[in-house]
Amino acid sequence: MRRDLFFKLTFLVFLITSSPFASSIELTDPLPSWNNGIAKQSIIAFATDVTDKTSKNYVRPEDRIATIDNDGTLWVEQPMYTQEIFIKDRFQELLKNHPEWKKQEPFKSILTSPSKKNREAVFAITSSKMTVEQFNSTIKDWLKTAINPRFRHHYTELVFQPMLEVINYLQANQFIVYIVSGGGQDFVRAFSEDVYHIPTEHVIGSTTKTKYTYQNNIPILIKEAKPLFISDHTGKPEAINLFIGKKPILAIGNSDGDQQMLEWTQSRPGKTLLLLVHHDDAQREYAYDSHSNVGTFTQALFAEAKKNNWYIISMKNDWKVIFPYELGQKK
Amino acid sequence: MRRDLFFKLTFLVFLITSSPFASSIELTDPLPSWNNGIAKQSIIAFATDVTDKTSKNYVRPEDRIATIDNDGTLWVEQPMYTQEIFIKDRFQELLKNHPEWKKQEPFKSILTSPSKKNREAVFAITSSKMTVEQFNSTIKDWLKTAINPRFRHHYTELVFQPMLEVINYLQANQFIVYIVSGGGQDFVRAFSEDVYHIPTEHVIGSTTKTKYTYQNNIPILIKEAKPLFISDHTGKPEAINLFIGKKPILAIGNSDGDQQMLEWTQSRPGKTLLLLVHHDDAQREYAYDSHSNVGTFTQALFAEAKKNNWYIISMKNDWKVIFPYELGQKK
Repeated sequence: MRRDLFFKLTFLVFLITSSPFASSIELTDPLPSWNNGIAKQSIIAFATDVTDKTSKNYVRPEDRIATIDNDGTLWVEQPMYTQEIFIKDRFQELLKNHPEWKKQEPFKSILTSPSKKNREAVFAITSSKMTVEQFNSTIKDWLKTAINPRFRHHYTELVFQPMLEVINYLQANQFIVYIVSGGGQDFVRAFSEDVYHIPTEHVIGSTTKTKYTYQNNIPILIKEAKPLFISDHTGKPEAINLFIGKKPILAIGNSDGDQQMLEWTQSRPGKTLLLLVHHDDAQREYAYDSHSNVGTFTQALFAEAKKNNWYIISMKNDWKVIFPYELGQKK
Repeated sequence: MRRDLFFKLTFLVFLITSSPFASSIELTDPLPSWNNGIAKQSIIAFATDVTDKTSKNYVRPEDRIATIDNDGTLWVEQPMYTQEIFIKDRFQELLKNHPEWKKQEPFKSILTSPSKKNREAVFAITSSKMTVEQFNSTIKDWLKTAINPRFRHHYTELVFQPMLEVINYLQANQFIVYIVSGGGQDFVRAFSEDVYHIPTEHVIGSTTKTKYTYQNNIPILIKEAKPLFISDHTGKPEAINLFIGKKPILAIGNSDGDQQMLEWTQSRPGKTLLLLVHHDDAQREYAYDSHSNVGTFTQALFAEAKKNNWYIISMKNDWKVIFPYELGQKK
């Protein structure tokens, strides 16, 4: 038995060391969808340095925490956040079963006026008073069917291929990759494993309270409309401390809402890497920064980035492709 | 070079397969401080089953979530929670620098009356209005010096050796082991890595809000006295959903405050394992259940455990030793 194991493992060693695969490992580009600019080089140089045991910048695997924003950093956020489209669609669907809402308050006002209070009411109607499992299924069902009108693809296909490569590359280098989204935690968790290969426990986002109760003697968690915390701006480092309890060594965002996460990361002693995605490609995706209400990237953030040596990722210049489906089309 | 690698790896395979170590792997008892009762058998049988790819109960490593209570399950909680002793000690220390408090409110009342409101005031004085790093250092310094008067050991030495073995055994079987404590999250995180080998991000507990701000242009997180959530009773499954987003397959507790965590775990489809530590060893530790204010284990919980096939761990009968330092004394 042990002799048998010896020969099996020896044969495996032979296969590994003699195959063309062995020599190609280091030659394979880990970020093939990136042009060879400063942004790409900074990512590879950083990962190489902090994983090198002989480097003064070496970081133990358990401290290789990376935090990445979702909307506008990992997928399209224009002309409005995908979760908002979900909420609108869901409300319209509920409306089909409730024609009386058109004449009843608060629904009548919701349908005619998009005030903040009414948006909160729509959020409550579409995203609470159900179990966490029911909410999860509702999101998954919507993601399977809804189509983005401009790109004519499912929303989960509108993730950025170069960023998928970054997640994969970091995970291969034993980074623990977290998503830290200003959007709803449950919403991102519904597709994070399938699309990003990031497990639910590594998804941090804005959350509402839940209530533990029983239905036919079976324990359930009911989603409530009461906010627990908002994971945006100063809420990002607060949520990172709450969920992780240590400072990241790498953070990537794309808007003013990510500034505090990048500052917090950079305040860690030792080497850190900070990056911001700049949407400057109207042809292939969108071009926006300081004048956009969604994903606002002000001149103040540009100045902050310059002062602190945060790298700007230009979608136009740094990314060979934007979406995964483009790779298929190229073949 | 590759030829060289082949010989090196082959030699390594030879060493592993030919050494006495290879055949002893399966023979080594993973829980040596446990007597061979139902509790121990249930743990080993469960871990063996869910990690066996040919078993119908096989669970992928990413879903092998275990949630374990802290006070009374992993370490001593009598005659009062260790965090409460820390708070009392800390308040006495602060009092040395503030002799005027003896005549000032709210301090005067705090010193004379242990009402709920006053306990909250002491909590606020000792555990807020400082950075998260300052709080962490304060706890670590206290843990290094404070001595338990009965056992004459540091509080971090009063962890249960059989439970350390369970954590280690589960982690070796690719379980992701979380602590889910009713106590303060920051307090447990201050020693979880060193004592339990559980990283901060796998420690869930009761938390207060933090506030992101700046001190001399350096970002800091200030602890506030406002509660964010209490991770006890129904708060345990709520916190598990918030932090992890999926149901555990194994849960261990020791009191009524853990009942909902065990119910929630058992509501997962597929095989689960639920255990409760019963403190029935007055000689070596403490004996208490329904009549204790700390770690109350009511008759209703015993009935619930029986009905749902939750195993009771008898400290007296199941554990050969209680504390790690006993192992050293035996040599």
